[in-house]
Amino acid sequence: MENWGEEEKVFKDPVHKYVYVQHPIIWKIIGAREFQRLRRIRQLGTGYLTFHGAEHSRFAHSLGAYELTRKIISRFMRNRYAAWSEEENLVCLCAALLHDIGHAPFSHSVESVFGENHEQRSCEIIIEDTEVHRILCEISPDFPARVASVIQKTYPQDIVVSLVSSQLDADRMDYLLRDAYMTGVSYGTFDLGRILRVMRPYQGKIVVKESGKHAVEDYLMSRYQMYWQVYFHPVTRSAEILLRNIFLRAKYLYQIRYAFAVLPFSLEKLFLGELTVAYFLMLDECVMQAVFLEWTKEKDRTLADLCQRFLFRKLFSYQIIEDDDKHAVAQMAETLVKAQYDPTYYLHVEHPIDHSYDIYHSEQAKGETPIFLLTEEKKLVEISTQSAIVRSILGEQRGKRHMYFPKL
Amino acid sequence: MENWGEEEKVFKDPVHKYVYVQHPIIWKIIGAREFQRLRRIRQLGTGYLTFHGAEHSRFAHSLGAYELTRKIISRFMRNRYAAWSEEENLVCLCAALLHDIGHAPFSHSVESVFGENHEQRSCEIIIEDTEVHRILCEISPDFPARVASVIQKTYPQDIVVSLVSSQLDADRMDYLLRDAYMTGVSYGTFDLGRILRVMRPYQGKIVVKESGKHAVEDYLMSRYQMYWQVYFHPVTRSAEILLRNIFLRAKYLYQIRYAFAVLPFSLEKLFLGELTVAYFLMLDECVMQAVFLEWTKEKDRTLADLCQRFLFRKLFSYQIIEDDDKHAVAQMAETLVKAQYDPTYYLHVEHPIDHSYDIYHSEQAKGETPIFLLTEEKKLVEISTQSAIVRSILGEQRGKRHMYFPKL
Amino acid sequence: MENWGEEEKVFKDPVHKYVYVQHPIIWKIIGAREFQRLRRIRQLGTGYLTFHGAEHSRFAHSLGAYELTRKIISRFMRNRYAAWSEEENLVCLCAALLHDIGHAPFSHSVESVFGENHEQRSCEIIIEDTEVHRILCEISPDFPARVASVIQKTYPQDIVVSLVSSQLDADRMDYLLRDAYMTGVSYGTFDLGRILRVMRPYQGKIVVKESGKHAVEDYLMSRYQMYWQVYFHPVTRSAEILLRNIFLRAKYLYQIRYAFAVLPFSLEKLFLGELTVAYFLMLDECVMQAVFLEWTKEKDRTLADLCQRFLFRKLFSYQIIEDDDKHAVAQMAETLVKAQYDPTYYLHVEHPIDHSYDIYHSEQAKGETPIFLLTEEKKLVEISTQSAIVRSILGEQRGKRHMYFPKL
Amino acid sequence: MENWGEEEKVFKDPVHKYVYVQHPIIWKIIGAREFQRLRRIRQLGTGYLTFHGAEHSRFAHSLGAYELTRKIISRFMRNRYAAWSEEENLVCLCAALLHDIGHAPFSHSVESVFGENHEQRSCEIIIEDTEVHRILCEISPDFPARVASVIQKTYPQDIVVSLVSSQLDADRMDYLLRDAYMTGVSYGTFDLGRILRVMRPYQGKIVVKESGKHAVEDYLMSRYQMYWQVYFHPVTRSAEILLRNIFLRAKYLYQIRYAFAVLPFSLEKLFLGELTVAYFLMLDECVMQAVFLEWTKEKDRTLADLCQRFLFRKLFSYQIIEDDDKHAVAQMAETLVKAQYDPTYYLHVEHPIDHSYDIYHSEQAKGETPIFLLTEEKKLVEISTQSAIVRSILGEQRGKRHMYFPKL
Repeated sequence: MENWGEEEKVFKDPVHKYVYVQHPIIWKIIGAREFQRLRRIRQLGTGYLTFHGAEHSRFAHSLGAYELTRKIISRFMRNRYAAWSEEENLVCLCAALLHDIGHAPFSHSVESVFGENHEQRSCEIIIEDTEVHRILCEISPDFPARVASVIQKTYPQDIVVSLVSSQLDADRMDYLLRDAYMTGVSYGTFDLGRILRVMRPYQGKIVVKESGKHAVEDYLMSRYQMYWQVYFHPVTRSAEILLRNIFLRAKYLYQIRYAFAVLPFSLEKLFLGELTVAYFLMLDECVMQAVFLEWTKEKDRTLADLCQRFLFRKLFSYQIIEDDDKHAVAQMAETLVKAQYDPTYYLHVEHPIDHSYDIYHSEQAKGETPIFLLTEEKKLVEISTQSAIVRSILGEQRGKRHMYFPKL
Repeated sequence: MENWGEEEKVFKDPVHKYVYVQHPIIWKIIGAREFQRLRRIRQLGTGYLTFHGAEHSRFAHSLGAYELTRKIISRFMRNRYAAWSEEENLVCLCAALLHDIGHAPFSHSVESVFGENHEQRSCEIIIEDTEVHRILCEISPDFPARVASVIQKTYPQDIVVSLVSSQLDADRMDYLLRDAYMTGVSYGTFDLGRILRVMRPYQGKIVVKESGKHAVEDYLMSRYQMYWQVYFHPVTRSAEILLRNIFLRAKYLYQIRYAFAVLPFSLEKLFLGELTVAYFLMLDECVMQAVFLEWTKEKDRTLADLCQRFLFRKLFSYQIIEDDDKHAVAQMAETLVKAQYDPTYYLHVEHPIDHSYDIYHSEQAKGETPIFLLTEEKKLVEISTQSAIVRSILGEQRGKRHMYFPKL
Repeated sequence: MENWGEEEKVFKDPVHKYVYVQHPIIWKIIGAREFQRLRRIRQLGTGYLTFHGAEHSRFAHSLGAYELTRKIISRFMRNRYAAWSEEENLVCLCAALLHDIGHAPFSHSVESVFGENHEQRSCEIIIEDTEVHRILCEISPDFPARVASVIQKTYPQDIVVSLVSSQLDADRMDYLLRDAYMTGVSYGTFDLGRILRVMRPYQGKIVVKESGKHAVEDYLMSRYQMYWQVYFHPVTRSAEILLRNIFLRAKYLYQIRYAFAVLPFSLEKLFLGELTVAYFLMLDECVMQAVFLEWTKEKDRTLADLCQRFLFRKLFSYQIIEDDDKHAVAQMAETLVKAQYDPTYYLHVEHPIDHSYDIYHSEQAKGETPIFLLTEEKKLVEISTQSAIVRSILGEQRGKRHMYFPKL
Repeated sequence: MENWGEEEKVFKDPVHKYVYVQHPIIWKIIGAREFQRLRRIRQLGTGYLTFHGAEHSRFAHSLGAYELTRKIISRFMRNRYAAWSEEENLVCLCAALLHDIGHAPFSHSVESVFGENHEQRSCEIIIEDTEVHRILCEISPDFPARVASVIQKTYPQDIVVSLVSSQLDADRMDYLLRDAYMTGVSYGTFDLGRILRVMRPYQGKIVVKESGKHAVEDYLMSRYQMYWQVYFHPVTRSAEILLRNIFLRAKYLYQIRYAFAVLPFSLEKLFLGELTVAYFLMLDECVMQAVFLEWTKEKDRTLADLCQRFLFRKLFSYQIIEDDDKHAVAQMAETLVKAQYDPTYYLHVEHPIDHSYDIYHSEQAKGETPIFLLTEEKKLVEISTQSAIVRSILGEQRGKRHMYFPKL
């Protein structure tokens, strides 16, 4: 028993039971202030307004993505696969842990309105003089740059990038399982154990043994179901629209030099497009919600109303309209104007499509490789060529057109 | 299909699968702004700093407590138990839903430092002119008062109070299951279905059929385990101490007329002991954390340091010390002073005991009846007289003494 | 059904938690000897030789199918759907409970070799003078015939037949969930609660609200996955082939008047095609396996060898061969003959197809209606017209061709 | 154990998800006919007559006990505990896999009536000339004897025995979890992951870190609950009594030279006390049930009746009687005699006590060490000295006295 010394440390995790930390650098990164800030950024943005369980943070998800990466790598090493080099292990683990560190609060809306980019921001946090950066430097001076390059998908070894970011990566696997667990929606579950067992490093890619075809189909169907049941739930969309309109209104007011009763510096920097890393770290979803609460008392009626709607969940209603039905929209706009609602902020029409959540594409896209099956004869074949099911969900998913508007 | 009319509405819930809403008043209460505010109050206070999954809100718990109450009542009605009157149903459901509506942010600490009382506050919100109040009045003018009296345990029918607040009530059953689910700790699970099946209304009490003895033992053991594994986890305690010291320091600074750079009105009212319902509703955990983030930049070194410790989880360390070891404490105090830490805010010694979480007491206490078994011969016997296991956890649970202090 | 007297009785069930019995007739049927015999018939036939957890019986499944039917009907009655008549309730419940009562041991093989038919046999057991029959007569003299006609799909109210036997019936829903639970394969799970919530009786059919489309897709994908992962697992097929060849060999030996050391009467009657209900009830999987164990000592080398292979799981190997590869088969036959194995019993080639487990067909087939969605405009549309996913699994599923043979 | 060659093989297991086989000897043992026979011996004996899910076999449990042993050992090796020697690994794994191989069908009853002993029989199967024996000899000629000595608790290294057989061993942990899963009773679950994490080899024992005290309490409470809810359920007892009386009657008839219509050789050998290993292997629960089915047609009315009662679950009723109530028993005996039932076979009185299922004893008993906590100061303390809960369940558990008799 003498010297149990450096036993592994664990976090209790509802999805993976435990998250195992076996290297001191990982432990330190988790303790860094930039990483702790992720506790105040929700994984599902406005999803909690539809699914009250979905309060889970990007902190939890980042630990989960790390843990899955660790599990995959451990298996690769236990089976001594020739295509996997032990050198990359720590780079991989750090990249998995840090891949979401640059997320702004409510990042979908903030990115669309203010042009933030979480991937780029993650790299800045890793490269610039932050607590995370200093910890990574303990390994070697070029270590931060190596980790950042995995996130930017420019790391020389494709297989490392592929582990952290592909169509079957630790990131996606964790969030599907976690979002399903926390919302209580049973659709997102798939046989993680089986997927892990059929993954192989091969010719610079992470591929799947042919016998794992059905397991991958099942995983992609989970994506499909979560897409429709959770990520694109119209109530979540409705909340997202409200949020974006809050930002649009506030931005507009700032541009016309409206005198905000409350406006934190960090938000002003965001409006000005001058958000440094230091200010970025002062922005989180608590700060945002606290500001919205103050804004419910602003003189600008539109801003105040939108904020109280968001905080107290008086969301927009919605109805399905035909793709070519311009009349319904025009009529609604008119009705709103009569009721003194500005349609710019109170009327929105969209198809539930979002490229950040596409289910599967069979070609290289956004730097993400498609999923390849490794046949018994050692050939690689892209999965949609082998599966009618996968073909049936290929490409852009486009739902019915929804019109969102306040209940009158 | 003709007239599906008022089909029940549901919320997806990870613990109970679905929460069923079958009365329009319940639906409206859930939509009220005072109830929506509970989304920004965590069920487990600082527990998320130990268990990263524990971000769940009192909103979710309140829905769960309501749902369990609904399940119990439905069963009573299906089995047409003589001791249950249908009249009380809606009073009961509303009381279950609203029993936590008066919780302040981080309410343990706020109650201990500022003398808030969540039970009393809940009643105020129900009785005074709020959105919730106006909704309850739709039933009848005296309905708010009836609901409030259940929460105050003064409602004339004891059995109604007992359903909402006893040692085997919907509140406790929901939070045990929910906290276990969200933390990922498996200890808190018990056979809910079986417990519900053995509960009976009898002579103005909710009692348990004798054959359910083992199920109740199992439930009490879950309480015991959650008490030690979760509610009294020393890391959670450590965070709680930090939080309380933030409040103590801020209160002190306010008293000596320190000029805060940021201090919201609602907080000032709290400091002054003049918190009206309207201001109370402006306080939530987002606001608190946003204020703490601002306070990390305050000139007062102690306040700033405590706040950044809390937000970035640089918690106090702890060690177990003997009950009579005054020396260790004195020595630590000295060391802290040398390192320029004020022991008032940086040193704390306690046993892990908290009466708000006692496991089981066999006598009437705090208005809560003990658990009675109903024998085949229709006698009521208090469970600890029948169970060596229950006797073994009776009374105050007192853990080892811990000393908390900053890592030096 | 007024006054079911006492409180409901329950069975603890691992899949549905509890099975509720609320009518004395149901309780009696479960106790009948014909129903108790189902404890000795496995739900998955030879599946336990692939998945060691799959020892669950048709007794358990029949209780489960009953319980799901009960749940569906309860909901129909709670919501007072005009299209559902309370009169049919007990007929429905009895039919669900008894739908599998005529299953022979290892019924796939016995049906294919000896021409047994479980549906017809179930009706015989209900109609002829059995314990079950006498219990059903307690309701009314024509009650057994009514129950049998539901199983035969000739009952006048289509909707009753549809509940017990359609492509989304209680039978299928229970076995998918149960087989998944017992094998440990996670693929078979789907959101039962959601499916139950979207089912509606409508125009003599059980249909699904349009908003339940994704839930049905998910259910059909579960069927698809269980089909490939479990029901058609090549190891299970291999065991099934062995079993069928045992029966074929025994039948052949009986025809050539071979003197069996052990041959129970009931089996002789089966060979002769003269199996009465009384003898049928003397056949179960225990009897079969006990006979096989005796047969391992038979003089006929083929029979003895096949039996010991089956009992001690020395199964045939298999390899995938091309559809038109006659050469491989011929060559294997030759090799086997050289090794003194009769290819009639030691060589088998097949595609994994079985019409008893087809996933989904969009047309009325085998008396089973397809699944209809009920649109907001009250139109019925068959689901495959609305779902690319469903179209992708339509029709016969045909796997790769496998050749089975003993390891040499 | 260098180079186990190919990739690991797995079995899908509902309790542990997968059972991993990483050594060819383990694979071969599982395939041996003596091991395959365990598929026809149920883990819970007559428990399936109370809990219809409890059809799981000792085959499944043996794989599970092996898997848990493997997990424990892997952790010991990963953490390189000084007190654990790698040499013992394979001995341990084989002993875990084979510890139940000597179980007779319905072994409680067979052991009590005919003096079989499963531990001794397991050793015979390992030592005598069986398929299992020949496989073990592939490691070394003395390997079978080493494995057998672990099962007999005479292996020189206590720690190896302790892993396979103690009060916190892989055997008990598997069966608690498996029996809970299969019956659907939620009481048997405990935090396996946590238990595994706190186990340590220390001074020739498997001990538990002090911080694991609550986890062990939870595990012992699971034992307590399973004891009362499952293992001693009066319905299971009732079936067991019936079974034992069948054996007693058959034995008696054999002694008086009654001419059985059907009596397999293996059973005759059992009656004679001359059961060799070869005949033993011809006895399983299928054979027994098939024989019972034949016996329902025996001329001896008592034997025939008991057998049909067992097979078609017409079990004895029971009622609770006072410890000193001789009158009730005498009266029942009289009533039975009048109704022409022989009380020898139709009346039984007992307390639900069985030493094979005692929950916990704090002293060395039956070769099993109690559970020790390892304190921070490296002292070993027996757990009941530290835990009031454990003390409350110490020693013999004795329920109320039950009288069993046929419904008249």
